[in-house]
Amino acid sequence: MSQDTLNIALLGHRFMGRAHSNAWLQSTHFFDPKLKPVLKVACGRDEADLQAFADRWGWEEIETDWKKVIARDDIDVIDIALPTFMHAEVTIAAAEAGKHIFCEKPFANTLEESEAMLAAAKKAGVVHYVNHNYRRCPAVFLAKQMIDEGALGEIYHWRGAYQQSWLVNKDHPIDWKLKRKLAAAGPLWDLGSHAIDLAHFIVGSDFKNLTCQSKNFVTQRPLAESPEQIADVEVECAALMMGEFKNGALASIETTRYATGRRNRHTFEIYGSKGSLSWDMEDMNRLKYFNQDDPEKAVGWRDILATERCHDYVKNWWPPGHIIGYEHTFVHAVVDFIDAVADGTSLFPDFSDGAKITRVLEAALESAESGARVNL
Amino acid sequence: MSQDTLNIALLGHRFMGRAHSNAWLQSTHFFDPKLKPVLKVACGRDEADLQAFADRWGWEEIETDWKKVIARDDIDVIDIALPTFMHAEVTIAAAEAGKHIFCEKPFANTLEESEAMLAAAKKAGVVHYVNHNYRRCPAVFLAKQMIDEGALGEIYHWRGAYQQSWLVNKDHPIDWKLKRKLAAAGPLWDLGSHAIDLAHFIVGSDFKNLTCQSKNFVTQRPLAESPEQIADVEVECAALMMGEFKNGALASIETTRYATGRRNRHTFEIYGSKGSLSWDMEDMNRLKYFNQDDPEKAVGWRDILATERCHDYVKNWWPPGHIIGYEHTFVHAVVDFIDAVADGTSLFPDFSDGAKITRVLEAALESAESGARVNL
Amino acid sequence: MSQDTLNIALLGHRFMGRAHSNAWLQSTHFFDPKLKPVLKVACGRDEADLQAFADRWGWEEIETDWKKVIARDDIDVIDIALPTFMHAEVTIAAAEAGKHIFCEKPFANTLEESEAMLAAAKKAGVVHYVNHNYRRCPAVFLAKQMIDEGALGEIYHWRGAYQQSWLVNKDHPIDWKLKRKLAAAGPLWDLGSHAIDLAHFIVGSDFKNLTCQSKNFVTQRPLAESPEQIADVEVECAALMMGEFKNGALASIETTRYATGRRNRHTFEIYGSKGSLSWDMEDMNRLKYFNQDDPEKAVGWRDILATERCHDYVKNWWPPGHIIGYEHTFVHAVVDFIDAVADGTSLFPDFSDGAKITRVLEAALESAESGARVNL
Amino acid sequence: MSQDTLNIALLGHRFMGRAHSNAWLQSTHFFDPKLKPVLKVACGRDEADLQAFADRWGWEEIETDWKKVIARDDIDVIDIALPTFMHAEVTIAAAEAGKHIFCEKPFANTLEESEAMLAAAKKAGVVHYVNHNYRRCPAVFLAKQMIDEGALGEIYHWRGAYQQSWLVNKDHPIDWKLKRKLAAAGPLWDLGSHAIDLAHFIVGSDFKNLTCQSKNFVTQRPLAESPEQIADVEVECAALMMGEFKNGALASIETTRYATGRRNRHTFEIYGSKGSLSWDMEDMNRLKYFNQDDPEKAVGWRDILATERCHDYVKNWWPPGHIIGYEHTFVHAVVDFIDAVADGTSLFPDFSDGAKITRVLEAALESAESGARVNL
Repeated sequence: MSQDTLNIALLGHRFMGRAHSNAWLQSTHFFDPKLKPVLKVACGRDEADLQAFADRWGWEEIETDWKKVIARDDIDVIDIALPTFMHAEVTIAAAEAGKHIFCEKPFANTLEESEAMLAAAKKAGVVHYVNHNYRRCPAVFLAKQMIDEGALGEIYHWRGAYQQSWLVNKDHPIDWKLKRKLAAAGPLWDLGSHAIDLAHFIVGSDFKNLTCQSKNFVTQRPLAESPEQIADVEVECAALMMGEFKNGALASIETTRYATGRRNRHTFEIYGSKGSLSWDMEDMNRLKYFNQDDPEKAVGWRDILATERCHDYVKNWWPPGHIIGYEHTFVHAVVDFIDAVADGTSLFPDFSDGAKITRVLEAALESAESGARVNL
Repeated sequence: MSQDTLNIALLGHRFMGRAHSNAWLQSTHFFDPKLKPVLKVACGRDEADLQAFADRWGWEEIETDWKKVIARDDIDVIDIALPTFMHAEVTIAAAEAGKHIFCEKPFANTLEESEAMLAAAKKAGVVHYVNHNYRRCPAVFLAKQMIDEGALGEIYHWRGAYQQSWLVNKDHPIDWKLKRKLAAAGPLWDLGSHAIDLAHFIVGSDFKNLTCQSKNFVTQRPLAESPEQIADVEVECAALMMGEFKNGALASIETTRYATGRRNRHTFEIYGSKGSLSWDMEDMNRLKYFNQDDPEKAVGWRDILATERCHDYVKNWWPPGHIIGYEHTFVHAVVDFIDAVADGTSLFPDFSDGAKITRVLEAALESAESGARVNL
Repeated sequence: MSQDTLNIALLGHRFMGRAHSNAWLQSTHFFDPKLKPVLKVACGRDEADLQAFADRWGWEEIETDWKKVIARDDIDVIDIALPTFMHAEVTIAAAEAGKHIFCEKPFANTLEESEAMLAAAKKAGVVHYVNHNYRRCPAVFLAKQMIDEGALGEIYHWRGAYQQSWLVNKDHPIDWKLKRKLAAAGPLWDLGSHAIDLAHFIVGSDFKNLTCQSKNFVTQRPLAESPEQIADVEVECAALMMGEFKNGALASIETTRYATGRRNRHTFEIYGSKGSLSWDMEDMNRLKYFNQDDPEKAVGWRDILATERCHDYVKNWWPPGHIIGYEHTFVHAVVDFIDAVADGTSLFPDFSDGAKITRVLEAALESAESGARVNL
Repeated sequence: MSQDTLNIALLGHRFMGRAHSNAWLQSTHFFDPKLKPVLKVACGRDEADLQAFADRWGWEEIETDWKKVIARDDIDVIDIALPTFMHAEVTIAAAEAGKHIFCEKPFANTLEESEAMLAAAKKAGVVHYVNHNYRRCPAVFLAKQMIDEGALGEIYHWRGAYQQSWLVNKDHPIDWKLKRKLAAAGPLWDLGSHAIDLAHFIVGSDFKNLTCQSKNFVTQRPLAESPEQIADVEVECAALMMGEFKNGALASIETTRYATGRRNRHTFEIYGSKGSLSWDMEDMNRLKYFNQDDPEKAVGWRDILATERCHDYVKNWWPPGHIIGYEHTFVHAVVDFIDAVADGTSLFPDFSDGAKITRVLEAALESAESGARVNL
């Protein structure tokens, strides 16, 4: 890389392409990362769309062949905002080319892919990161800090859920997210990967065992390309998990696209011997905290608005009481990623976290099929 | 029974004895039941305590032998507020004596007991009721009405929990609730019986299958009678369930005595194709409602304060906006019980509901042991 | 009075008659007052209604002439649940007869009446109490305790409101509450008396000055007795106040019957140099608390569910997490009243508080008229 | 201006300089304004700071003399992020130079200044805008739309407040915001200008009269530059207002910097004959709505998460359920401003709104002094 800059190539220019572009741009406005990211090239298949996208966000060039992008000497970072089924091939090629990798989630469609990706990144010695952006939501990060400082004591329960509702509409057509080959699974993969990562991060322990039950509420839907045709929904509509962590805590996690009235409710409750916490992405700036050691008279769930000057990440934005939004979590991830590259350090969640999550998800698929508890 | 009165005998005079006594007394103050309950006799083992209790609540007589109570001709109703392990013997005797039975929950310690109790009550042709009082919380009753009227459409998800925290205190001694022989199980029985009944009632369907996982966080505790001695906790500390209803809905239910900061959080979320509802006993007067058919611009979770004049039960108390509390649910149950006796009708939940719940709980125990899904 | 009992006469048998009857009865069920109240006689004008009322609640006798009631030697307490305009005459007669007085609010229609009532009670040496029952809502009582213990430091702001909505319905007829002669004023008197008392109690200071602005949104309504006839609404529809307390705190108080969606929202926010509190009667079991001294990282509004064993009044009812309702506040008042009689002590708010409130309300009326700030 | 671009000059580079710079940059990323803003020149007095600021945000040039900036032919827009006392001089000069003006609030320190500013802008025929950015918070904008569509019917009450707490810390030094000459007043001006604008916007009516009461809780503070010296606080610590709108609605508005636990609580409740709304900036993505016409059984306050695809402004950001933050309101204002310039239309709130607000604030100052109601 050139002296003070970091040259970025973005693969993918849809929803996540926007979020990532914004993050690279905002990183130097509100933070002081150790290198200045340069938006070198955006890569995609639809050239007209891609050019408009690049113009909007200030990508210097466009390219339709991702292999050419990876082959470029002037690129430091490959930012992968592609559908999951492409992650393995692209990631491994990027690693082999010595590029640092910022990879969207879900990490991979199979554990086999995951392990190959991890091995390639390790061998190449590059910075490798899986973008479970919720870890860097200030209220979530605060939860982690408080737990590390002992605020919860021994942990008894994790009660998590990631609930959406976009499939409640029965006219919603079949898209790639409903095809097994492309998406691996339904909400278990898409939402469950985030939910499992959050559990790993906050609980600070791995699953010892789990059971999963899934269900197809709606089994057929129109095709997006020809709505008069009906095709099978190939992935589950909802998946419930329960299990135990190695540290002894019990866990339940619910993922669904059929929770009417929940738009993006990624939520957890965590209960420990000294206190408890809860959080909900739809109210993402707040962390609820119950401190068992408060005076009995004044014990109660505290509503922490995580916008104080002592709260990490958020302190770089605005004064206390001024909330931030969804895309800010991406900015925080990008800033930490840049610094990890500059410092030659690891950044979490990395590909080993990605592989660990995939292992849990595959165990869940297995249990959903068999009805039996699976040890991990 | 005498012309317009209903003679009650209460067995048990602790926590539930108070709640039941209050209910019989308040029934005629705020409602107009078809018969006037007469507090004839209170029965218990500790004569001094019992007399004080009877004086406080206006029970005409006391008796220390429950068999004598059941043998009395002038008693119409046996109100059972005893520990669960006594339910079967007492209930069957009461039924055989032709008494109507108002029975506290959990219904029984085993399915075998449950079925014998049900058979006895059916054979005797008496009114038999299991006191899952939460059904008659006005907000819960409203939920049921709305679902029956189609407000939710096809039901996709039940996400329930009954969380308490009284065992977070490690000094809490072993009492009868922690002994398997007396209590059958831990929160699975005590809280889970309520949680399962609520699911049955609101979802309007039975379990097709379920899986359960339980855990002992604290395995030894001091004895109540001699705190310097330590004994084993014989029942689980927490139990998680997930499963499927016969109508196709997925369910998860969590029961625990280790949810720091939750005192009596009996809660559910229910999601359907046309709307959703949620409720929490700690905020028992409110029902949250999401109506998928609201104008898109103004769609949102509605906070229904169930104190309007059209809301059943609560309309008998105070004007809108004046909330009621925990014990009122017992009053509602008693009023309906009296009318069922007067009318010769059934009252739900009855002993067949009690038996059905026990069957689910036994399946959960079996699954917790085996780790496998159990069909019902 | 006889040795251990306290003989009660109730004047009035409508809404407040029910609440008071219930309170006398429940007082000995859940508490241990020093004397046992005996429901001697209920007094009212409609003999048939009155008899049904007495039968329901267990009043031993009925009487249609309140003067006869007051003249009885066997009555210890006159419980006044009459319209406000009758308070002065009845109260003064009761005091002169040496009866202890439990008087509903609003205390009186004029300051002149108030002072005469206070003088009579003082001269008679009886226990005199004005039933601002919200003081004995456990969460409110807790607020007072916390402030007395210094939790708020110097007080800066009181932001109160008492909002109802029953007049939003334009068909609501004119009843006594809308006639100046009978009700003195509109929500200023009915709701404002409660709101002012709560401010006095919690802030612990008196008004130094205030300004008031009132408004008639709907000036004519049908007569209750002949709905085809229209008559003038004689009292204000809403009244806003602001002012300063003698301790330097600023106050705003809003009273209205036109707050659509608010049924009985009696609420306050109080801000001090060390912390803040807020409360709302529609969620009466909860007190919100912000502690400025919490660690910066974990600072936040705490949601205290005032049902812990250390919380006064509520501890007599049920275990933590089991909420109580509206009528319980009356029970608490009655219990304290009985003990004050037994002990020969004062009970607050007493008639001097009642007179002080009336003085504030009269100043508000004056300011609403003149548009100028009034010193108190 | 050049064909498709709009050349911007920013005066001021502190807090608001950041917010404005971000808004100009983000406007083309998430929206499609009719012209592309070009960040031409940033102007300030501290050259080193200014250069760092310009580098961070991509301003092409810097300048320390605002008069030179206004004199430049290539500048289309003067964006004023200066302290209020400078607004009049700069604004009038900018108008005279034919520049479009995007002016931060508070608009001006006096009504006299306000009227001169308005006259200059009108005479010049430029687009003139005062940045009360809260109008373009999606939930607020939705409130306005709903009211315009009749959701509230006749409006009875506006209950507003803008509460902060940064002066609760007694060590906070005297800065320009506490000096009368520079800031005109305390929270009345700083927060009250926003609060009054919001009332004007949402209620859709002007004040007919008002009364104000203000207070100094802390009268002396250390000087920022030499903390061992103490100086007088020259502005009020808190100011309460109440009044009536021309449409008959009552209003109360509270502004303070001493509301412990409130960081940036800009909030309102509005009650009408058909419904009610409430909002709080600390939870800015949500609008609470009570619809009087909901079925009685299901009536309740609705929690509208204003992130649906039909909600203006927010639909350009992320899918439903993904919230936005504080700075987004500035982006929305900038986008509308650019389009107003492109279309030659007015943009609200404009300088006549600014002047109207100043008139209300001056009346409040007068009333706070006199204690009397002031007609407007």
